Amino acid sequence: MTDTPTPDQTNDRHREKMQKRKVARDKIMASKTEERGLIIVHTGKGKGKSSAAWGMAARCIGHGYKIGIVQFIKGRGDTGEHMLFTKFPDQVTYKIMGEGFTWETQDRERDIEMAGAAWKESKKLMADPEIRMVILDELNIALRYDYVDLDDVLDTLAHKRADLHVVVTGRNAKDELIELADLVTEMTLVKHPFREGVKSQPGIEF
Amino acid sequence: MTDTPTPDQTNDRHREKMQKRKVARDKIMASKTEERGLIIVHTGKGKGKSSAAWGMAARCIGHGYKIGIVQFIKGRGDTGEHMLFTKFPDQVTYKIMGEGFTWETQDRERDIEMAGAAWKESKKLMADPEIRMVILDELNIALRYDYVDLDDVLDTLAHKRADLHVVVTGRNAKDELIELADLVTEMTLVKHPFREGVKSQPGIEF
Repeated sequence: MTDTPTPDQTNDRHREKMQKRKVARDKIMASKTEERGLIIVHTGKGKGKSSAAWGMAARCIGHGYKIGIVQFIKGRGDTGEHMLFTKFPDQVTYKIMGEGFTWETQDRERDIEMAGAAWKESKKLMADPEIRMVILDELNIALRYDYVDLDDVLDTLAHKRADLHVVVTGRNAKDELIELADLVTEMTLVKHPFREGVKSQPGIEF
Repeated sequence: MTDTPTPDQTNDRHREKMQKRKVARDKIMASKTEERGLIIVHTGKGKGKSSAAWGMAARCIGHGYKIGIVQFIKGRGDTGEHMLFTKFPDQVTYKIMGEGFTWETQDRERDIEMAGAAWKESKKLMADPEIRMVILDELNIALRYDYVDLDDVLDTLAHKRADLHVVVTGRNAKDELIELADLVTEMTLVKHPFREGVKSQPGIEF
């Protein structure tokens, strides 16, 4: 017959195991000393690519940093993120430069013109030494349709200020951008309510 | 010799193609009429699970909704999300109920006690008819270690108010929770700078 450990023994064993884990973890964390501006990419077919960027925007605003946001595709200003972040005009420069997805605008030349203007604005924000994070929302879409020159984007990001974080969102991120980035997350769709007749709702999708 | 389309022809073809796409898309969107509170799960080993929840919190706050946030594991109050969202005390109830990960606390009984208190608080927030969204940050971790009873969570979520959104984050979401959820995203790690000696930075990880 095996001895069943008493709750006290279980708790002691747990503590011992966790103490060992903490020592190992502290050692790993101590080796991570570098602070640097990151190139972050959120891509994939799942939800949460832009939301996670807004979450980082929220974190930056909470810490008192200045940030820049450029939306390359989406054109509406009645989103929750826009309504919240524009309450902090001293910290947030928010540029809605898109006019909708390609099937909404139906005008390729106009799309290219708008994307060019958005990219110009993005470069301006990235050049501002006071800005800690620039979010380029849906830039991946503009790159995919060749609305913005990939080489120019790669070159600009490769030569960005060392302490600037840049977050790029959108499906189908270019391989060259993934290669250049520090942190890449793919949002994978597991289940989506759109498939079941549920419409886009405030607070969730916008 | 093939005729090369003039830019005008290209633009016309683009417009025609996009008009067709818009008709198809409008038809799909018109079939999506239901508004309902969703059970949303962010899981996976990648980054962005909590950030995407904070993004939705930001959207809700922007729209003027009331929300509740319960943090099951993380115990620090100096995060950007906490500093920003607590600027809106009329809209946000923010409960930091964790004391850190298991290897930090090293006390299983205390962890269970804290998680129980956090779950009790979560139920209270979910029962408040004024609250539109409740975020249960890292609940998946508490479920994984059996700190909170899975059946109780499933039962509570299955019987939640029809118009309440609930967002659950954390790695290793239980299969039963994924089954019950409306919208599930797996954040997949493609590239992570921690591996290269970069430490956790304000605005990015907290």
